[in-house]
Amino acid sequence: MPPSPRPRRRSPRDRAQEQAGIPQLPWRSVVNPYAPLEVVSADQVEAIHDTSMRVLEELGIEVMSPRTVEMLAAAGAEVDRATGLVRLDRGLVAERLATVPPVFTLTPRNPDKRLTVGANHLNFALVSGPPNVHDRVRGRRPGTFADYCELISLAHHFNAVHMTGNQAVAPIDLPANSRHLDAYRANLTYTDMVYSCTSIGRGRALDGIAMMAIARGLTLEQMAADPAVMTVISVNSPRRFDEAMAEGLIAMAEHGQAACVTPFTLMGAMSPVTLAAALAQQNAEALFGIVLTQVVNPGAPAVYGGFTSNVDMRSGAPAFGTPENAQANVISGQLARRYGLPYRSTPPNAANVADAQAAYETQMALWGAVLGHANVLLHAAGWLEGGLVASYEKLILDIEMLQHMMEFLRPPATGAADLGFEALRDVAPGGHFFGAAHTLERYETAFYQPLVSDWRNSEAWADAGAEDATRRATALWQRALAEYRKPPLDPAVAEELDAYVARRREQIGDGEP
Amino acid sequence: MPPSPRPRRRSPRDRAQEQAGIPQLPWRSVVNPYAPLEVVSADQVEAIHDTSMRVLEELGIEVMSPRTVEMLAAAGAEVDRATGLVRLDRGLVAERLATVPPVFTLTPRNPDKRLTVGANHLNFALVSGPPNVHDRVRGRRPGTFADYCELISLAHHFNAVHMTGNQAVAPIDLPANSRHLDAYRANLTYTDMVYSCTSIGRGRALDGIAMMAIARGLTLEQMAADPAVMTVISVNSPRRFDEAMAEGLIAMAEHGQAACVTPFTLMGAMSPVTLAAALAQQNAEALFGIVLTQVVNPGAPAVYGGFTSNVDMRSGAPAFGTPENAQANVISGQLARRYGLPYRSTPPNAANVADAQAAYETQMALWGAVLGHANVLLHAAGWLEGGLVASYEKLILDIEMLQHMMEFLRPPATGAADLGFEALRDVAPGGHFFGAAHTLERYETAFYQPLVSDWRNSEAWADAGAEDATRRATALWQRALAEYRKPPLDPAVAEELDAYVARRREQIGDGEP
Repeated sequence: MPPSPRPRRRSPRDRAQEQAGIPQLPWRSVVNPYAPLEVVSADQVEAIHDTSMRVLEELGIEVMSPRTVEMLAAAGAEVDRATGLVRLDRGLVAERLATVPPVFTLTPRNPDKRLTVGANHLNFALVSGPPNVHDRVRGRRPGTFADYCELISLAHHFNAVHMTGNQAVAPIDLPANSRHLDAYRANLTYTDMVYSCTSIGRGRALDGIAMMAIARGLTLEQMAADPAVMTVISVNSPRRFDEAMAEGLIAMAEHGQAACVTPFTLMGAMSPVTLAAALAQQNAEALFGIVLTQVVNPGAPAVYGGFTSNVDMRSGAPAFGTPENAQANVISGQLARRYGLPYRSTPPNAANVADAQAAYETQMALWGAVLGHANVLLHAAGWLEGGLVASYEKLILDIEMLQHMMEFLRPPATGAADLGFEALRDVAPGGHFFGAAHTLERYETAFYQPLVSDWRNSEAWADAGAEDATRRATALWQRALAEYRKPPLDPAVAEELDAYVARRREQIGDGEP
Repeated sequence: MPPSPRPRRRSPRDRAQEQAGIPQLPWRSVVNPYAPLEVVSADQVEAIHDTSMRVLEELGIEVMSPRTVEMLAAAGAEVDRATGLVRLDRGLVAERLATVPPVFTLTPRNPDKRLTVGANHLNFALVSGPPNVHDRVRGRRPGTFADYCELISLAHHFNAVHMTGNQAVAPIDLPANSRHLDAYRANLTYTDMVYSCTSIGRGRALDGIAMMAIARGLTLEQMAADPAVMTVISVNSPRRFDEAMAEGLIAMAEHGQAACVTPFTLMGAMSPVTLAAALAQQNAEALFGIVLTQVVNPGAPAVYGGFTSNVDMRSGAPAFGTPENAQANVISGQLARRYGLPYRSTPPNAANVADAQAAYETQMALWGAVLGHANVLLHAAGWLEGGLVASYEKLILDIEMLQHMMEFLRPPATGAADLGFEALRDVAPGGHFFGAAHTLERYETAFYQPLVSDWRNSEAWADAGAEDATRRATALWQRALAEYRKPPLDPAVAEELDAYVARRREQIGDGEP
């Protein structure tokens, strides 16, 4: 090993960086330039497809919304009004899927943060939905609106997060019927990016659409032609769409906004214990919902959602980031591509703490999703405890892992200067490249600079407190919150949003939205 | 979410498993059935190849062994006897590489643990080379022979480890000149699998070959036709082969044993700061060594070793498991395949403790190596602190990660029963599959059962002591050592090994072997 260089003096770039805050990658549209992995053969994809078509043709999906049943009947589905069972033949499915745009954009109030969904684009979203929140300073607790605002502020601060999901944590200190209004207003105040609407019922979805339109200064009609928000329709697997979900989906599609239909198909629980069968079920349920979006509004943006994992075979507890979950993430991509649909996946884990298990489970599912060419990765930052907790430390570890992946997805250049023959020539055998001109010209930007990773030697690391990555993450989210700055918002827009929220809160009262 | 099943009674299988020890995957030959990833295009591979050929043709490699220089001169190389610089033209390189077997086997004393190296086969090796050892009970300390024996016992106990490397930890309580004899004897006593020979000089390599031949009851000639051991030749990058390495390589090749030639090309230190140039250098150096194996003995097994990572751009410290390291692991596979050579890679990390950083860095490099179709993964279990420490807890976490990968590499079946149409039909919408016959028939073996992962809910996990994965790993290596059983060894063979060690120890004395 050659001698180490003398410690460098702090460069102007170092000083600039300290002033600029935590070093991180710039905001960028992430593109996956590599060929997708294929875990099953084309024939196997067809076998899964065929089984899913038999599910739709022979078994049907129960739709707990008479209005939706009638819409599907009018579109050619075979319906049983007594049971709500709706059957689709494969010709009808193929015909309706043909109108889904393979690629679409979502434009938030800051147009620089426009997302492209489909093709080789990859977008990372903040965790959404946990009832609880955890950090090492304040412990594990039910989520509040203050936590919610902190979490979306962190998402805004870190460029690797491209969108917020639907409620990073449930703000349970706010009334259940109107908290979505506070959440949307916070999304539009603390961040300037795309968010997911709550899709439990028509009202909540419409509020999310209307408030984003206000923030963008667009009419609903204008925004229908230039969508901004997404929603996630979680099917009640197996084979059931409830009324709230159906109504949320219809509202989104009517307004030209994106609906991501995601069956939650835990093998051994809501799905058969075999991966092939669980994926056949996922495929049937996801395509059913996507067909509905096109029945409502042909050409409305829609996303194929895959979320298939397994239970613990001993206890029935959900497991994530397993080998089966990673395979499902790849194969779901194979299925989505078969239909030319944008694909949503997730890198979850089932750890109770942001530890090595949380990291390796997340990595397994993340690689599966990326190799499967997912276009949207929901819950990509902050998910812990199988989704029961939004974790501050895990959020930091996730940003690090997402940034690693972003850099992995940039293939190296191989121009003459990159191939560096002259640099190789100029260093003698047994020498070193520390001081070479080729090195000095590129040294400061050649490599990814990590967020959490600590590469000091053991002694220096121990002298600095011997903190593991989880502990280091605590200081990083604290620093990020201290450095966070609200994105500018036109006061007139803020007033209009306030007025909308006040009016809707009045309307909603204690009733359902 | 459907209701959880009642906790199952402990089944006969559960009880059998408890008696059988820590649940783990069976020993198996791991095959990677998926297409390799390509991070660079075929044209880019050619550009790297071309640069590496220019290095060999125009710059040359310094060989600090006059005997080796003469061997290469006789084979057609252009040599400068004053400087030891050896130049190879690309025609000579191609001609010599043509005799390397694309696939070979290594057969240890237990023929059930025969390894296939090449094609789609993937073999995992224990960490090798650290001067220090760490576990959470005894702390960080210089390695001893007792530690060495424990580490190889753990490797033997866990089926995911296919071979031991060269000295899992340096037993620094033994004399430097003869400790390789104790290590080989321990390898043949505590394990029954393939090991790597120490390649620092001819004597150490020959001892490793001779002792394995004794254990197998073969002559050296018989073992040359049916190889058993490997060595790793670490080039003194840039562009230098020292005498000890050259002599070790020659001894292995002469005896038909496998030489893995691995430049250690840390970008910015021993290599240029750009990935393309570092890989060109790696390629030149690795191919140079492999050409030498074929000059010595055409058809001798040889392996293309890739170990390219980067330094910390601030301190010059080595970094591993970085995005650049992961890309290098993929592209090295593209290069090895260009020449039809078996490929060795490594999933390292630079963490100081077996934490989340250790896990995500290992995962980055592991996925790169697997997607690059590595055939041998050295340091796959137990590597920590950039190779300065063999870690007991990391070894356990690594076994878990390797087992995850082994299962990911088994694509799901899609026969009619796997597609499960009847199972899907028999569960009503909104129902669950916990009690379905299709589930019950497969439940106990359907999913990977983890080693370290804890999927209990937060309350149960906290009640059990709130241990993170690193802490749980401590109990697991302790249990594994308690459950470990030495593989049987014919007492006559043991005696013969003892006699060999005694004789050689006498010969070596205080001098160099």
